[in-house]
Order: sequence, then C-alpha cells, then structure tokens
Amino acid sequence: MSTSERLIESTRELLWERGYVGTSPRAIQRRAGAGQGSMYHHFAGKSDLALAAITRTAEELRAQAEARLGGPGGAVERIAAYLRREREVLRGCPVGRLTQDPDVMADEALRRPLEETFGWLRERIAAVLAEGVESGELDRGLDPAATASALVAVLQGGYVLARAAGTEEPFAEAVEGALGLLAARAAPAGRPGPGAGRP
Amino acid sequence: MSTSERLIESTRELLWERGYVGTSPRAIQRRAGAGQGSMYHHFAGKSDLALAAITRTAEELRAQAEARLGGPGGAVERIAAYLRREREVLRGCPVGRLTQDPDVMADEALRRPLEETFGWLRERIAAVLAEGVESGELDRGLDPAATASALVAVLQGGYVLARAAGTEEPFAEAVEGALGLLAARAAPAGRPGPGAGRP
Repeated sequence: MSTSERLIESTRELLWERGYVGTSPRAIQRRAGAGQGSMYHHFAGKSDLALAAITRTAEELRAQAEARLGGPGGAVERIAAYLRREREVLRGCPVGRLTQDPDVMADEALRRPLEETFGWLRERIAAVLAEGVESGELDRGLDPAATASALVAVLQGGYVLARAAGTEEPFAEAVEGALGLLAARAAPAGRPGPGAGRP
Repeated sequence: MSTSERLIESTRELLWERGYVGTSPRAIQRRAGAGQGSMYHHFAGKSDLALAAITRTAEELRAQAEARLGGPGGAVERIAAYLRREREVLRGCPVGRLTQDPDVMADEALRRPLEETFGWLRERIAAVLAEGVESGELDRGLDPAATASALVAVLQGGYVLARAAGTEEPFAEAVEGALGLLAARAAPAGRPGPGAGRP
C-alpha cells in the first residue's frame, strides 16, 4: 500500500473510532507509519485527508446499499435485505456518527458527502417503495419519500440505541419493528387488510 | 446560581455542543466563570461533572417524554404528540449524541444513564402501544416492544439525517413516515383494513 493509501485508510479507521474532533494529525501519522512531512506532501492538512477518507467511506456505503436495493426480489424483500444486512452495529455507522462531530458540521466541504450519502439513500429506498406501490405489492396510501426517510432513520437511530445499551439487540429490534409496520402495508387492493378476518 | 450549579449547566451545554472528547476541564471552567480549584472542590474531575450533567439532561428528557406519553388521548395521539413535540433538531439529541463519543462509551458510569434513558423510553412507548392494542385502537398483530424501538430509533436517526442535510426537514419527514406506518395499524377488528374498499 502506498503512503497516501495508508494515510487515507488510517484516517478512516480513526474517524470511525474517535471522530474528527478526537483525531489528531499526529495520531493519523502514527497509525499510518508516516512522517509529518510525508503527510503534508500528500495532503493539505487534516481536513483534506478527512475529506478523502469520508468520500471513500460514503462510496462503500452506497455500493453496499445498492447491492441489496438493486438486487432481485420484491420491494419489501429488497428493503428487508438491506436493513438486515450484517453490520458492525456497536461500532456505529462510519458516516452517520460524523454528524455528531461539531467540526465536521462546521465545515461545508466535510458535511457535503454526508448530505449526499443520506440524500441518495433516502431517494433510492423511496424509489424501491414507489416500485412496490406501482406493482401493487404495497398499498397506494403509502408515502414512499416519508417512509424511506423513516427507514433510514431507523438504521441510524438503531446504532444509537445499540451503543447506549452496549448490545446489538435494540438495533435488531428496531429493524424488525420497522419491517413489521412496513409488512402491514403489503395489502394489495381486493384482498382484505389486517383485522378484516384473514384466514 | 451557585458555582456548582454553573459548573453543571456549563458542562451540559458543552457536552451538547462539543461532546465529551471535545470538552476540556478548562473550557468548562471558562464558561462557568469558575477557577480550577473551585471545580475540583465540587467535583472529582471531568467525568464526575459529566455524570452530574448527563444525569440531569436525561431526567429532563424523561420528564418531557412523560408529559406527552402520559397525557390525554388515544395511544397513537399521545405517541404523535411526543414524536412531533418541538425540538432543537439541528443541535441533535443531548443524550443520543453522547453514544458517538468514544470516551463516554468506554466509561461504564457515563454510559449507564444513556442505557437507562433509552431503555425507559422504549418501555414507556411499548406500554402505550400495548394499551392501544388492548383497547382495540391498534390491531392485534402489532408488536409493541419492536414498534417502540423502531419509533425511538426514528427520532434518534432523524437527528442524524437533519444534521447531515443541514435542515430540519428530514427529521420531520421521518417522523411523519413513521406515524403514517403506525396509522395504518389502527384498524380495529370488524372494520375493513386498508385497500379493502373503504368509503
């Protein structure tokens, strides 16, 4: 791995573990096994390096989401596959956690990739839900955009609840709770809805 | 206000703005207008002071939640009142944001009030949902515990999405999306569910 690569990967790890405020240029250099001169040869400073790290992490998150959301199956099935995919729950979301970092929020260039990533994710899930409504899999009363925002929020809030509890359980429970609510909207016209005397 | 009070209130503000890692004893003393000797006279150190601050913030969060969840009205109405209550969305949740702080997570005494607060909130909302199922307001297929975790996660994740976007809109959208899903479960037995030819 090149020095520049090692610096980016070390920054990604440290941002995930310690956040931006908690990560010093010194700590990055130490983890990357790179000198100060070498770091400033490749990057203008901590924020430039953080931008490269955040951009890469955001790209990975999108690719992982697209693998499930663009996969085979119905709308609910693809969304369930995405929500239930294996995650390092107790480490938190490497993108979402940065929104709690005051210095990231104060720097437009660093906040931008967070905005784009979650904007993309909400739109992508809304499009899958709209497909489901269109095909008759989901009932016509469902609001795809609002529902998509709720589902993305469940994931991000699930990390918060899991970290607070010190166990992954609340994350899994929140995901199943959301999928339970979504499943109840899977009532195509003509078939009786919940509580209407299903066999 | 006594010096000890000023120290606690200053710590609460700084934890909300900067997090625990980003808050130095020095910054607390400066904001409280208290000297170092005075701070260590009242508190053993930064973590002792943070515990007092977090405990108080957590108590306020509970009281605000209980005011809506224990108020008048049906289950869905009370939950909607709680989810929609006025919040400083872009500042984030003063309790939830601490779960992204590595030094809070590493200190059992500081993590404990976060665990208790969210544990209490999930149980309180689950109890309101269970009342709604019991009274026939919500359909019997609803899982109160899982749904409650999903709703608390929507709030916490809503803060994340709003901060990422730099606007409150995604928070409000996620809340309305969740309430839309919940409203669809309000189908008492005997009445037709969604899609079953409502007038």
